[in-house]
Amino acid sequence: MIGLGLIGGSVLRAAAAVGRGVWGATASAADAEAAAADGFDASTDVEAALRRAAERDALVVLAVPLTAVEEVLRAVDVCAPSCLLTDVTSVKTGVLTAARAFAPNARYVGGHPMAGTAESGWRAGDAALFGGAAWVVCVEDDTDLGAWAEVARLAIDLGSHVVPLTAATHDEAVARISHLPHLLAAVLAAVGADGGPVAMALAAGSYTDGTRVAATRPALVRAMTEGNREALLPVIDEALGRLGALRGSLASTGGLAVSIESGYEGAQALAAARQATLSGVRVALGAPDARDGLRALGERGGRITSLTEDTAVGEVP
Amino acid sequence: MIGLGLIGGSVLRAAAAVGRGVWGATASAADAEAAAADGFDASTDVEAALRRAAERDALVVLAVPLTAVEEVLRAVDVCAPSCLLTDVTSVKTGVLTAARAFAPNARYVGGHPMAGTAESGWRAGDAALFGGAAWVVCVEDDTDLGAWAEVARLAIDLGSHVVPLTAATHDEAVARISHLPHLLAAVLAAVGADGGPVAMALAAGSYTDGTRVAATRPALVRAMTEGNREALLPVIDEALGRLGALRGSLASTGGLAVSIESGYEGAQALAAARQATLSGVRVALGAPDARDGLRALGERGGRITSLTEDTAVGEVP
Repeated sequence: MIGLGLIGGSVLRAAAAVGRGVWGATASAADAEAAAADGFDASTDVEAALRRAAERDALVVLAVPLTAVEEVLRAVDVCAPSCLLTDVTSVKTGVLTAARAFAPNARYVGGHPMAGTAESGWRAGDAALFGGAAWVVCVEDDTDLGAWAEVARLAIDLGSHVVPLTAATHDEAVARISHLPHLLAAVLAAVGADGGPVAMALAAGSYTDGTRVAATRPALVRAMTEGNREALLPVIDEALGRLGALRGSLASTGGLAVSIESGYEGAQALAAARQATLSGVRVALGAPDARDGLRALGERGGRITSLTEDTAVGEVP
Repeated sequence: MIGLGLIGGSVLRAAAAVGRGVWGATASAADAEAAAADGFDASTDVEAALRRAAERDALVVLAVPLTAVEEVLRAVDVCAPSCLLTDVTSVKTGVLTAARAFAPNARYVGGHPMAGTAESGWRAGDAALFGGAAWVVCVEDDTDLGAWAEVARLAIDLGSHVVPLTAATHDEAVARISHLPHLLAAVLAAVGADGGPVAMALAAGSYTDGTRVAATRPALVRAMTEGNREALLPVIDEALGRLGALRGSLASTGGLAVSIESGYEGAQALAAARQATLSGVRVALGAPDARDGLRALGERGGRITSLTEDTAVGEVP
């Protein structure tokens, strides 16, 4: 485990709780001390932790900020060049490109647990953070499915279900359902606060819901949004287009039926997806079209819930 | 009580619970039947309910959709022309204008409890809905402060604190903290759903928070946003300006520091307002500048928490 903040610290706790042998290292002396004080094998010596992983053929999990990924990948290439490697950062194409460039011999499989809070640091971590969450485990054309299964097994052991997707599909989807929500929350919080004390005094449920994630540490929001620029720009343009159309409609006809109905249908789509009846499905990992099968399942809104020796078992709507 | 939906039904229940004599009427046979089945004095005969209010000099509360206000005001002018009258609709300038036009002899004082849920109808009502909520009770230059105090007393009896504001100030503030949140939630829900099943499968906290109010009944959202067009348009323009600037910044420099920091500061402003130390304040309702004093208190983020015979007692940050 490299990085012991909210996510890394939660993975370390959760993996230890299910009986896995774990150790961690982080550039943050405060997080390393806090983890050690809680009884975990943790230090600030990232290189030593990586060398130990190489010796034991352990799965290395990178849970460092996106901005620190390159430096840690260079250390991986020196200390554990052919290790089994995953990460938990919120943007996947950039990390994939960096892994290919800076740790080309590592068996890298990108990952992203869709869980988190507005908090950060070791003390905010929680072994139960991943229970019931979607955990994207990336499948590229050249992904080693043996390595993929090891990473998927970690996610499932920690209580998540696995969504197999390419890095590009992941990045486009999170631009819509994670990065745009953070940006709209920031816009709303700024426009609301410009209304002064009276606006703050009247703020109720719709405002507190809509601005909640604006309280996230700015560095974290910057890292994920700026790091997903290519996928995010067209999604921001969609939002600008919809908001502009809404504005034009209110100014000209005075009516907002179309915009409000579209939002209502969107809300119904989420509710329907969550209530959908799921059918069982199995993907043989040794089959020639296994990668396509996994990705098709992810793109249809399906999930892998368990793994046998050579088969991924899941469900799709 | 005219109107027995979520808000009207909740006011009826809450007022009865504190020992007030209450009766209600509504155009909705379903709501009237449900209220009667729950033991309340409720019918579909709005005119009879208004005549009874005139006989007993009762406070009439309009809790009908914005689109039905004019018709009910015309009935007030016929059946209870000089009654003490308030309303609980979410836009105040429009109702004030309508009250002056269609029930010119009523002692009208606009009101708006900042409470609600995505539900609607009598069965969704709850006597505890107004506990701890801000309830705007409008103060215009010609407001009779005796009538104002009666409406404020109802709000306080029902567990709310009173925020005195002009209708125009109210409408500008709710455009920011209620109507814009509903519109941004609609935009986000539409853009998110356009991402298809994979986006819905990955949606987590930031998305569910940001789209929660998009599940509100569209007719309700249309009524409040379309009914507050004048105040809402410049607020939408502020949001468009901020989102456009953010888009430009991401496209050109790749950086979002300014936008994200502004949102973070906005979130801190809400937290600070909620944690502010409050000082006691009293406004003598018989003083010549009482209206100015009440409005200044409201504009500073203050609230009235109790009323004596001739004094409003409150607190300000």
